[in-house]
Amino acid sequence: MAPVEAQRAHTALEHFIQEYFTSERSRFPQGEWFDPIYFDLAEYVGRKGKRIRPLILMMVHRALGGTLPVDAPALLRCATALELLHTFVLIHDDVIDRSETRRGLPTYHRLAAQRAGSFEDESARIGENIAIVVGDVVYALAIRALSGAALPPEIKQRLLDHFLNATVDTGVGELEDILFGVRDVAQITTTDIERMYYHKTTRYTFETPCVMGAILAGAPEAKITALVRATTPLGLAFQIQNDLLECRFRDAADLAACADLLEGKKTMVIREAYNRLDDIDRSFLQLCLGSARRSSSTLAKLRDLILKSGAIEAMQRRSEELFAQAAAALESPEFTPEESRQLADAVGLIRHRVRAA
Amino acid sequence: MAPVEAQRAHTALEHFIQEYFTSERSRFPQGEWFDPIYFDLAEYVGRKGKRIRPLILMMVHRALGGTLPVDAPALLRCATALELLHTFVLIHDDVIDRSETRRGLPTYHRLAAQRAGSFEDESARIGENIAIVVGDVVYALAIRALSGAALPPEIKQRLLDHFLNATVDTGVGELEDILFGVRDVAQITTTDIERMYYHKTTRYTFETPCVMGAILAGAPEAKITALVRATTPLGLAFQIQNDLLECRFRDAADLAACADLLEGKKTMVIREAYNRLDDIDRSFLQLCLGSARRSSSTLAKLRDLILKSGAIEAMQRRSEELFAQAAAALESPEFTPEESRQLADAVGLIRHRVRAA
Repeated sequence: MAPVEAQRAHTALEHFIQEYFTSERSRFPQGEWFDPIYFDLAEYVGRKGKRIRPLILMMVHRALGGTLPVDAPALLRCATALELLHTFVLIHDDVIDRSETRRGLPTYHRLAAQRAGSFEDESARIGENIAIVVGDVVYALAIRALSGAALPPEIKQRLLDHFLNATVDTGVGELEDILFGVRDVAQITTTDIERMYYHKTTRYTFETPCVMGAILAGAPEAKITALVRATTPLGLAFQIQNDLLECRFRDAADLAACADLLEGKKTMVIREAYNRLDDIDRSFLQLCLGSARRSSSTLAKLRDLILKSGAIEAMQRRSEELFAQAAAALESPEFTPEESRQLADAVGLIRHRVRAA
Repeated sequence: MAPVEAQRAHTALEHFIQEYFTSERSRFPQGEWFDPIYFDLAEYVGRKGKRIRPLILMMVHRALGGTLPVDAPALLRCATALELLHTFVLIHDDVIDRSETRRGLPTYHRLAAQRAGSFEDESARIGENIAIVVGDVVYALAIRALSGAALPPEIKQRLLDHFLNATVDTGVGELEDILFGVRDVAQITTTDIERMYYHKTTRYTFETPCVMGAILAGAPEAKITALVRATTPLGLAFQIQNDLLECRFRDAADLAACADLLEGKKTMVIREAYNRLDDIDRSFLQLCLGSARRSSSTLAKLRDLILKSGAIEAMQRRSEELFAQAAAALESPEFTPEESRQLADAVGLIRHRVRAA
C-alpha cells in the first residue's frame, strides 16, 4: 500500500468509526445523566490513536492482492471491529491497572468518575463500575461491526472465529499479567513473559489483523500460515520496543510516568535486568518491585538497577533480532516478491507510526 | 414441551455446558497459578442455577413447531450461549455491586480473592481484576458457542444479531442501574425503573431466548412480534417477583441478606413505597437510602417503611396483572390454540422453577 493510499485508508477509517458511533447513538438512553457516558466514549474512541490494528488489516489485504477499495464498508467494518476491540481492552485494562491517563488524557474510568464527582467518596468506584459496563458494551459493538459486514457467510464465519479466539487469548494474557504482577520476579521466566506478551498483545494487535486481512484478500491457507510465522517475532519486537519507551529516563518527570515500574509489572526489561544483576542487586530489585507503594526513591533505585544491568542494550539487540526474524519470515517462498515487498513496507510504516507516537 | 421432555432438555444442557467447558480447557494456561481460575469458573458455571434462559429457548422452539431434538448440538450451542451470557453478566454485576454470595456460594471475585489470599491487602482487588477479565472471556466463549453452531448462515446471522443487540441493551440497563443507584429516589420515576428492568433483565432473560427459539423453529416474523409483545409484561412481572422475594422479612437474618436494600437499589418496591408514603415518611425513606453504609437499624427502618406503605401488596397485584397481560398476549390469533397452550405451559414451568429456587 503506497503511503498516499495508507493515508486515505486512515481518513476513511476515522470517518467510518465516527459514523458507526453516531449510528449507535440511539441505543444509549438520552438525558443529562446518560449523555456524558456516550459523549465521553465518543471522545475516547475519537482520540488520536495509532490505529495500527485496522491499518495492518487494510495493508495486508492490499499486499495479498485484495481488491476491496479502502472505503468499502465491509473492509471498514472489519477494521472498526479491531479498533473497538482495542478500545474495550484499554478501558478494562486501565480499570485493572488503576491507570490515570491514556493517550495524554484521562482514562475512561477517570472521565466517568469526574462526571460522578458530586458523589464524592463513591465517585472513583462509580467511575470504575461505569467503565466495566461501557467496556462490555464496546466489545459487543466491536463484534456487531464485524458481524454486520456484507460478506459471503463462509468468509464472515472464518473472520468471526479468528476474532473471537483472539479475544479469549487476550483475556488469558491479561490473567497472566495480573498473576505475574503479584509474584516475585525470580518466579517468572523469560518464556512466561514472552507467552504473556503473545497472548495479551501479539494475538489481537498483529496476528488477527494479518489473518483477517489475508482472509479478506482470499489468500490460501499456506500463505496465512507463513504470515502468522512472521507476526510472532514482530509482535514481541514491538512489545519490547514499548517496554523500552518507558526506560528512556530523561528526567524525574519521566520516571513518575513509568506506569509499568509504578505497577511493578514483570516486563522483559525487568526480567532481563534480574538475569544480569549479581545477588545483592537482585535482592534490591526484588525489594523495589515487591513494595506495595513505589515511592520516587524506589523508582530511582529501579532505574539505576536497570541501567546498571545492561538490560536496555540487551533488549534493544533482542528487538532488532526479532525484527530481522520477522523480515526473513516475510521473504518466505509462499509470497511473491511483490507481496514480500509490500508486507515489508507495511512493517516499515507501522514502525514509523509507533516511533512517531 | 412435556415436563418429562423439559427434564431431558435440562439434563442435556447441563451435560453440554460441562462438555463445552472441558473442550475449552486447553485455552487456559495450566499450572498451579492458573488451574484455580479455570476450576473456580467451571464450578461457578456448574452451580445449580435455574437455567431459565436456555430452557425458554428450548421450550419456545418446541412450542412453535421446531423439530430439533433436545440433544441437537446446534440447539444446545444456542442454549449454552444464553447461559454463558448470564454467567458473564453475573460475574461483572457482582464486582460492580461488591456482592459476596451468589447461588449460596461465594461470588466469582470472592473465589478469586480467596485464591489470592496470600497477597493480603491486595487480594480483594486482585480478585476483582481477575473477575473482570474472566467475565470478558466468558462473554467471548458465549458468542463462540453460538457462532460455532452448525446452522444455515442466514439463521445464524439473525440469531447473532439478536444476541449482540440484547447484550448492548443489557449493558445500557446496567448503566441505568448504576446511575439510579446514586440518585435520590424522588428523582427516579416508575417509568425509569420499568425501562431499566426491561434493558437489564427482560431483554436477555425473556425476549432474546424467545426470539432465538422462534427463529430456530422457523417461525414467521408476525409470530415473533406477537411473542415479543408477551415477553415485556412477563419480564417485568418476574422482576417484580424477584424484588418481592427480598421483602419477605421473616427475621433479622433475612434483613441482612437483602442485597438490594443494602445497596440502596432503586427497585419498583422502593419507588412504590415512596409514592405511597406521606411527606415525613418519604424523608425517612430518602435518608435511609441515601446513607453510605446501611446499618441494621437503617435496614429495619427501611423494612418498616416498606411494610407500612402497602407497596408489597400493590406490587403483588401489579405482578399478577402483568402475568395476566402476558397470558392474554399469548392467546394472540397469531398462534394456533396448540401453540398458545404450549407457550402458557412454558410460562407455568418457569414460574414454578423461579418459585422453587
